[in-house]
Amino acid sequence: MKKKYLFTPGPTPLPPQIQEALSRPIIHHRTTEYQEIFSEVNEGLRYLFQTENPVFTFASSGTGAMEGAVVNLTREGEKALAIVGGKFGERWQEILEAFGRECIPLEVEWGTAPSAEEVEKLLTEHPEIEVIFATLCETSTGTKTDIEALSSLARRKNKILVVDAISGLGAMELRTDEWGIDVVVAGSQKGMMLPPGLAFLSISERAWNKVMDNQVKAYYWDFKKMRKSYEKNDTPFTPAVSLVVALRESLSLIKEEGIENVWKRYSLMAYATREACQELGLEIFSRSPAEAVTAVKVPSGIDGGNLFRLMKDKLGIQAAGGQAQLKGKILRIAHMGYMDYMDIFLVISGLETALSIMGYPLEKGKGISKVAEIFVKEGVFS
Amino acid sequence: MKKKYLFTPGPTPLPPQIQEALSRPIIHHRTTEYQEIFSEVNEGLRYLFQTENPVFTFASSGTGAMEGAVVNLTREGEKALAIVGGKFGERWQEILEAFGRECIPLEVEWGTAPSAEEVEKLLTEHPEIEVIFATLCETSTGTKTDIEALSSLARRKNKILVVDAISGLGAMELRTDEWGIDVVVAGSQKGMMLPPGLAFLSISERAWNKVMDNQVKAYYWDFKKMRKSYEKNDTPFTPAVSLVVALRESLSLIKEEGIENVWKRYSLMAYATREACQELGLEIFSRSPAEAVTAVKVPSGIDGGNLFRLMKDKLGIQAAGGQAQLKGKILRIAHMGYMDYMDIFLVISGLETALSIMGYPLEKGKGISKVAEIFVKEGVFS
Repeated sequence: MKKKYLFTPGPTPLPPQIQEALSRPIIHHRTTEYQEIFSEVNEGLRYLFQTENPVFTFASSGTGAMEGAVVNLTREGEKALAIVGGKFGERWQEILEAFGRECIPLEVEWGTAPSAEEVEKLLTEHPEIEVIFATLCETSTGTKTDIEALSSLARRKNKILVVDAISGLGAMELRTDEWGIDVVVAGSQKGMMLPPGLAFLSISERAWNKVMDNQVKAYYWDFKKMRKSYEKNDTPFTPAVSLVVALRESLSLIKEEGIENVWKRYSLMAYATREACQELGLEIFSRSPAEAVTAVKVPSGIDGGNLFRLMKDKLGIQAAGGQAQLKGKILRIAHMGYMDYMDIFLVISGLETALSIMGYPLEKGKGISKVAEIFVKEGVFS
Repeated sequence: MKKKYLFTPGPTPLPPQIQEALSRPIIHHRTTEYQEIFSEVNEGLRYLFQTENPVFTFASSGTGAMEGAVVNLTREGEKALAIVGGKFGERWQEILEAFGRECIPLEVEWGTAPSAEEVEKLLTEHPEIEVIFATLCETSTGTKTDIEALSSLARRKNKILVVDAISGLGAMELRTDEWGIDVVVAGSQKGMMLPPGLAFLSISERAWNKVMDNQVKAYYWDFKKMRKSYEKNDTPFTPAVSLVVALRESLSLIKEEGIENVWKRYSLMAYATREACQELGLEIFSRSPAEAVTAVKVPSGIDGGNLFRLMKDKLGIQAAGGQAQLKGKILRIAHMGYMDYMDIFLVISGLETALSIMGYPLEKGKGISKVAEIFVKEGVFS
């Protein structure tokens, strides 16, 4: 018997209620029973997205809904701005280019987020740009972009803002309507505490008008068809029934805790993780760290691959390594999904122990003490 | 306590092993553990598809893989033939047209299948056609198309044949390599006994050459990217992990029984269903009945909607009604997924009882006796 602990930034661990819901006998989707579930789910999604806009549910990975955003919201040959500071910013660029859009990338150093001024400068240079593609949490570097500021800029310049919130939604503050974000894309396997297989997209009236004006070549991602079905609590194609049934449980857990409390919990877990890592003498990779995942630099003298494997194979703790140019250089610890404060003790203990086994000089117990100090001070256990 | 019996042509009932697999803790997809599962799944899929060709797995509904086939295998403006004899044939036409392909429909009367001669005639009229889109089991009418004959024609005329086997694969004989079918599309929620959420596509070398020659505008459905990943037992985007884990169980059940035995079982169940319905004085809708689902005409004097609801609400048996122009006119009884011989007794008893309650004149017990006679004669219980 060896317990396993998943700290990857998607998939994330499942609550037992959701595991149970996934195992229920299947029901048919063209029934009152399913429609009632889907109606409840749609209400819960609007709450989670903090929007009154429609939220579409696709049977696909998050990337599918990103593709949907590109093909419905832009025309061939149209110039579009994408913020590129990691693997997922690159994905916006790749999708835009795959469909013959002209991508104007705002390339930012990995581990940093763009300022609204940099975005504004590029918009001024390319006034034809109508749509900005951004990423709430760039999972590959653990970096948060200030979406509120971007959204305010987008409204001032009358641009449409599309946010990939796949890795952040449900774990990081995001106020779709209050901030005025046009399109928010999400996936099931992150903050929603579900297996992968569902993608979501909310769309504002402003963005909707552009979709309606657009000659869209789409079928599976056809937003017009999606909206028509959505209004009847239906989907154009067979939905991933078991995942939707489990989603109801997830949304009800989130509703029960309250979205602001959920954000606060993950934010505090992220803060404790960063502080504890620094106590251990480690450096946080990102200069604008996200609440969903912390990227910590592998200290010099330590092999990143060996650290990852020791934690995974011997301690049972699976974090994520670095991707592309960050391979072996960072360790990414997620704090989203079915995770609470005690999990932070567990992962920091594991990291401390693994580093210590590998001969890295650290004062034992300092990481954990810091976590305890923060949680006690914040009244987590009172 | 009221038991429910699902006889819809997708989703279909789940075996307990699969329900259990769906509820397991989630694992990360970039691990040796997942890769071993996916490698086993890929082997099982090749067995199920009866092919040595690659079989791609998408996180999507079946329609997604249909879209993938259209965008990867045809060019804009290209003429393509689609056999249209029901809702799913229409889907090929809709997808082709959504992406600016010129669809030459071979319209056949609903409930009938085209002969190879009719297809050949159209190919002769439009020699530019390179790809034929067909449907193994047209679920909306319970009709089977002779794919073996079509495939032989396609090879003779050097055309590519794409078969939507979403509703048939695993329930109806389909020999991809032996018959020489280029592309076979399938979905998880039918013969594979899984929830909806996975789509599959096998592709021959002949079809692959066309993909390679094609300037494809695709990202989520990009076959070149899929193939590169497939060769490493991977997928380009986060897979629907829980469904893939459960798929391994399903494929292992199919392998254990043997695909020919599986086909024989469903074929016999379908035959018994048709014979029993006729004993009850009912008419089979299709002139080329499929083994996956039987469409039976609602007899005159009986309201189709009421029959459906009586069976569903009072007896707990959910069949499917008719779609589009067949609404209220047929009842569709699936015999695929997690179903065995005894389920046929159950559904025929239910149909007989419901019709009898509604005042339809029939000799009670005749349907069941016919089922028993057939099964005993075929040695099902020996």
